[in-house]
Amino acid sequence: MEQRKSVTEEKKQNAVAIGEYLLEKLQAYNIKHVFGIPGDYVLSFYHLLEQSPIQHIGMTREDAAGYAADAYARVNGMGAVCITYCVGGLSMTNSIAGAYAEKSPVLVISGAPGMKEREKDPLLHHKVRSFLTQKLIYDQITVASALLDDPITAFDEIDRVFDSVARYKRPGYIELPRDMVDVKGRRHHRPAVSAAPSDPDVLRAAATEAVDFINASENPVILAGVELDRFGFQDKLLRLMETTNIPAAATLLGKSVIGEKHPLYLGIYEGAMGRFEVREFVESSDCVIILGAFMTDMNLGIYTANLDRGRSIYATSEKIAIKYHTYEDVTFNDFLDALLAAVIRQRQLPALPWLEGKKESVAIQPDSPMTVRRLFDILNAFIIDDMMIIADIGDSLFGSIDLKMHQRADFVSPAYYTSMGFAVPASIGAQLGRPDQRALVLVGDGAFQMTGMELSTSVRFGLNPIVIVLNNHGYGTERQLHEGAFNDIGEWHYSQLPAVLGSGRGFVVRTEGEFDFALKEALANTGSFTILDVQLDKLDRSPALMRLAEKLSKKL
Amino acid sequence: MEQRKSVTEEKKQNAVAIGEYLLEKLQAYNIKHVFGIPGDYVLSFYHLLEQSPIQHIGMTREDAAGYAADAYARVNGMGAVCITYCVGGLSMTNSIAGAYAEKSPVLVISGAPGMKEREKDPLLHHKVRSFLTQKLIYDQITVASALLDDPITAFDEIDRVFDSVARYKRPGYIELPRDMVDVKGRRHHRPAVSAAPSDPDVLRAAATEAVDFINASENPVILAGVELDRFGFQDKLLRLMETTNIPAAATLLGKSVIGEKHPLYLGIYEGAMGRFEVREFVESSDCVIILGAFMTDMNLGIYTANLDRGRSIYATSEKIAIKYHTYEDVTFNDFLDALLAAVIRQRQLPALPWLEGKKESVAIQPDSPMTVRRLFDILNAFIIDDMMIIADIGDSLFGSIDLKMHQRADFVSPAYYTSMGFAVPASIGAQLGRPDQRALVLVGDGAFQMTGMELSTSVRFGLNPIVIVLNNHGYGTERQLHEGAFNDIGEWHYSQLPAVLGSGRGFVVRTEGEFDFALKEALANTGSFTILDVQLDKLDRSPALMRLAEKLSKKL
Repeated sequence: MEQRKSVTEEKKQNAVAIGEYLLEKLQAYNIKHVFGIPGDYVLSFYHLLEQSPIQHIGMTREDAAGYAADAYARVNGMGAVCITYCVGGLSMTNSIAGAYAEKSPVLVISGAPGMKEREKDPLLHHKVRSFLTQKLIYDQITVASALLDDPITAFDEIDRVFDSVARYKRPGYIELPRDMVDVKGRRHHRPAVSAAPSDPDVLRAAATEAVDFINASENPVILAGVELDRFGFQDKLLRLMETTNIPAAATLLGKSVIGEKHPLYLGIYEGAMGRFEVREFVESSDCVIILGAFMTDMNLGIYTANLDRGRSIYATSEKIAIKYHTYEDVTFNDFLDALLAAVIRQRQLPALPWLEGKKESVAIQPDSPMTVRRLFDILNAFIIDDMMIIADIGDSLFGSIDLKMHQRADFVSPAYYTSMGFAVPASIGAQLGRPDQRALVLVGDGAFQMTGMELSTSVRFGLNPIVIVLNNHGYGTERQLHEGAFNDIGEWHYSQLPAVLGSGRGFVVRTEGEFDFALKEALANTGSFTILDVQLDKLDRSPALMRLAEKLSKKL
Repeated sequence: MEQRKSVTEEKKQNAVAIGEYLLEKLQAYNIKHVFGIPGDYVLSFYHLLEQSPIQHIGMTREDAAGYAADAYARVNGMGAVCITYCVGGLSMTNSIAGAYAEKSPVLVISGAPGMKEREKDPLLHHKVRSFLTQKLIYDQITVASALLDDPITAFDEIDRVFDSVARYKRPGYIELPRDMVDVKGRRHHRPAVSAAPSDPDVLRAAATEAVDFINASENPVILAGVELDRFGFQDKLLRLMETTNIPAAATLLGKSVIGEKHPLYLGIYEGAMGRFEVREFVESSDCVIILGAFMTDMNLGIYTANLDRGRSIYATSEKIAIKYHTYEDVTFNDFLDALLAAVIRQRQLPALPWLEGKKESVAIQPDSPMTVRRLFDILNAFIIDDMMIIADIGDSLFGSIDLKMHQRADFVSPAYYTSMGFAVPASIGAQLGRPDQRALVLVGDGAFQMTGMELSTSVRFGLNPIVIVLNNHGYGTERQLHEGAFNDIGEWHYSQLPAVLGSGRGFVVRTEGEFDFALKEALANTGSFTILDVQLDKLDRSPALMRLAEKLSKKL
């Protein structure tokens, strides 16, 4: 009897509530910050969250919290956002859709009406059509979703969603009814379902063909994509490059998957939008090894790329193909390992003349008006080792093509989904995820007006981003495609924001001299944000945008 | 031959493109303003829009455009918003979900990739999972949706969506691929499908029972809901009240469905949250005639209402019931008309002592610190005839219960869905829809930080809202339910916003004297917005919020 009682005691002590289990899992996945905004349906869980070692980062808007969690996931491996039912969750649909599109592993936790409250299907506040509306919407933009309506299955459901998010690097959705937060769940010893392994024969065949193909080629080249970063394969890439002396270009979405000062790094390949020399090098290669790249319109310079399948090896988490045929049942990881284990001959270091001796002068012309081109030239000299770039879309992104990132994974941008307003809130997630780095944010004036006030959150949590507003007085990219009054926006005095936010420094920049001065001041202002309102001509643009606009306007 | 040719000629001249037809329909439904933000997938349609008589109102964010279109729909009968694919449409999910929940007829027009571009299912920018993702999401939050992928059916599909929006007073979704904008469609003479008529026998039975019930009752009362406004039945309500002398209370969502200075108007009925006298009057009635009211938790004071079905008549667009039984096949409109056509006896004017002689003194105590209670007392004296109130949620809404609106339909608030951040963008739609009215916006500091920068759009279009920020330094309603650091937000200096936006006037208000002064200045400042940062104690609240919090915290 004595013994039995103590087992029961122990069981009782071990019983964990659903909300507590969720917090345990977050910590197990190295999540130290959760972004979000409270609301009455999620307050009980917020109460637990506050008592846990995880820090809650309150934002001004849910969509901004989604962007921050996305950026945090990109630099940390996984991110999480916690919001209330419908008014919170449905305000974040776009941010999570972007994370889905670009494979960023974000876990969404939503509070919800209690299961008991739902019984007679009453009209509770925040309900849209049915109590399932929000879940049905999230089913479209996540790889796994669960409504924790049963304590018997809740832990398994939580495990399933976390597993899927980690494996597919896409968002997952967990809906936690408020009357389930403190209910004890059941731990199962569910055998961990590991990813399906490669078929050894098929793997051998694929690797052999690939290695023979590479070894027989004259001038192979690697095209490195963002999945190398998402799956943590950057070291494998580097090893492949350095043991063989095969150089690599990166896609736009994969920018900074390798340190861009590496002598074997060619630059961004992006069809007609990218640098001519990089395009030449890649498209004239007789063996293009494409690793972890999504073949999106933006990555391919709006389909101006000219990549011949007959001369390529294509490997991602979703597909392994050589020339015109596909190998099923081979994982990306195993394929990469097989390449590294095989004997690929080492070549002479290739001649990359456009990279040599190219120390462009950035001598400041103090009275010259600022242009987009000069802005990026000057920034290239300004960037320091422990700085990451968070680029919004438009010329903030296109102009960045030629920025040289010093280290890996220090360039973050929604380069495929291209949702305006990503950068300022994302900088919060990125800086919290990598506190050793300072964030330099590049953002257009239109995008800043969407989410720039999130600097309020930077102030609250002591972050110090340098925000450069490329102020071309409207939706500049669209002006290139189709001009109309609808491309105009209100004129904000961005440099006055410190007066509203009670912190930070602001500068209006019209000339190179003013830009140089403001950048130096920004670097010295380590205690808060600095915002530079860089006044540009309405029609000024980077060379890449000029080329893009030409291509896009033909498709309208 | 000659004749045939000219018929063909005429046909050709009559041929209308899909984009043009859509613009014709918008105008046919009295839509003079379309809210939104352009993007490359919608630029061709924006080009047509710009050439039409409809004015495009560019906003800073899509969700704000959704709120503006919602408010416009509430005061104008229908509203429309036009945005680009996914990054635009999915940023607006919450606003449209709110319009669905509260029956606001908003038409969503989304640009989209062309049908030809979709053929091989490529990774085009802004695509999430499949090209249908956005439509599948909108299916959850609209009454009708259409992808205009075929010129043969496009006009019929457009008609169907407009019909549904007009009939059900809920949002509809139209997705316009960019290569279909200029394609000619076909006009059909589809017979207009009118709503199913009432069954005359059932209608007669229902009306007879209702009239007998009312005539036999001692102290009948009307509870008026928002559908009377949505369906334009305010005159019918007034006639019913004035011919019978039966007084009416309104639900919170139905506030201002009748002018609140009417001698037969009781006030807001809201269970334990509302005024005690109104509750007493309604709940002691032996015949409560509930017209067009949604029985939501907020409308019923979080279920503290005590309405006996055995003593009620319940009529909405979805249901007609008397006591415990329901009448099928009777429309709301026919039921109301039958009541008006019948002989309902006229009674003595009821005694409503709490409304008589109740001229509360609002004598300003110049040095008294501001409180929520005094803020609303003073506002009650300040409101003028041509002024409408746009209330955000929290105490901006609850405190408004006792504000007396002078005219009909001059109170706009998301009183059921309760999405924070509605009010400032909604004021733009409301003012454009009713240019004779001046908007007075009541908004908490948390809600203002979500969407308040939309004042930028007020500036652009010459609007002059008076914005009162109830600044209680955080999420005040939530503090009442569950206090924690997560209820804190950044401290903005709201009165400094004119420096950023280049227009407007700002005031910091700490005392009644300062409030009085700032209100007078605001009234005189007719050319731009005025913002009042009213500093309140962190824990101050209206009596209604105090009662609500007490009820809600028990449910957590």
